[in-house]
Amino acid sequence: MMSSMSEPAFQRARSAAAKQAREQAILEAAHALGRRHGVRDVTLTDIAAAVGMHKSALLRYFETREQIFLALTADGWRQWSADLCGDLAGRARATPAEVAEAVTGTLAARPMFCDLLAQAPLNLERNVSIESVRSFKLVTLGEVERIGRELRRLLGLTESQAFDTIATATSMAGALWQMATPGPRVRELYLSDPRLGHALVEVEPRLTRVLTAYLTGLGTEAPPAG
Amino acid sequence: MMSSMSEPAFQRARSAAAKQAREQAILEAAHALGRRHGVRDVTLTDIAAAVGMHKSALLRYFETREQIFLALTADGWRQWSADLCGDLAGRARATPAEVAEAVTGTLAARPMFCDLLAQAPLNLERNVSIESVRSFKLVTLGEVERIGRELRRLLGLTESQAFDTIATATSMAGALWQMATPGPRVRELYLSDPRLGHALVEVEPRLTRVLTAYLTGLGTEAPPAG
Repeated sequence: MMSSMSEPAFQRARSAAAKQAREQAILEAAHALGRRHGVRDVTLTDIAAAVGMHKSALLRYFETREQIFLALTADGWRQWSADLCGDLAGRARATPAEVAEAVTGTLAARPMFCDLLAQAPLNLERNVSIESVRSFKLVTLGEVERIGRELRRLLGLTESQAFDTIATATSMAGALWQMATPGPRVRELYLSDPRLGHALVEVEPRLTRVLTAYLTGLGTEAPPAG
Repeated sequence: MMSSMSEPAFQRARSAAAKQAREQAILEAAHALGRRHGVRDVTLTDIAAAVGMHKSALLRYFETREQIFLALTADGWRQWSADLCGDLAGRARATPAEVAEAVTGTLAARPMFCDLLAQAPLNLERNVSIESVRSFKLVTLGEVERIGRELRRLLGLTESQAFDTIATATSMAGALWQMATPGPRVRELYLSDPRLGHALVEVEPRLTRVLTAYLTGLGTEAPPAG
């Protein structure tokens, strides 16, 4: 503490910037590895090696491997929400099918985010500090509210219906992505055994069908314009 | 091989029965531990201790901890399907809301199965032999077809709609169960921070709402009786 208080201001700023750059490099390395191998198979040692640090040095920036991937999940929510809300905000009106396509299309364009959506409650939230869970949850709830406002405006949903819609879309994107990406050996099995043809899942068409029927079945009407 | 060929038949039968009893005891111990602590936190060492065996002896009965839990997932599919089909088969007709309640009620009554439904594609199917994946998949596909026949009969769904319905119900039951069961520390956080009230998920009402709207939105009609 004493030594940092005696540091000149520009030096503290420089080291804060250096710390942030290092954190960013760690997140980018974890993202690239998760994208290539699946989040499940990426260890802290892999990330440290990719970024050229010792594991012990990396642990000065993040608590655990799960905290790194939870931070990437929060980034994923921000980017998905910005993309989806940007699309929806440009529409004066939309049918259930059009909203379902916009939601599914922006999710399917983010395979790493789909992987993380399934990993977060199962694995990631369980091996980080309570403060990390709190700040992660506040990010996701903020984005859920933002997407929810667009859904309510376009389709006349209630708040509870908007929350259910987002929970359905993200839960199913996560689960279907896991089924669609079973690893090369199991994929080979599905392709080679004709009895298992149905086990091969395609995320985007199935999720579009399910969300279209779900939003149609809510039977709501968009509120009158104005 | 030679020594087993010279065994008297009754002795082989006795040892086959003993093997089966031992396998059953292992599965029951894993089930009890998974139910109490969550599947994620149960190790092979825990199971071996609960059944009073050495870990190396247990590995003569099952390949990995994941194979034990995959066998329990297959049992879960058989039992859920028997229970749900028993309910649906007794009905001459049903509304989407009634089918949604039957599907959700029989899933929510099986918390361990809900936990396993999320674990299977993420973790369990990835650490067993290809033959174990094949036999697991054949069990689940058989039960999906059985449930699908009842859904088609009652609601006039196509085969693809019946498959989508079961995939939606089981994917969401798995994902929502994980969110609803975040561990005691995170649960405490949700209860103590008023901003996080929405993070507390109730599986059964949400899944009932979603499936009811989804089945309604398919807009199909039950085929005429007879």
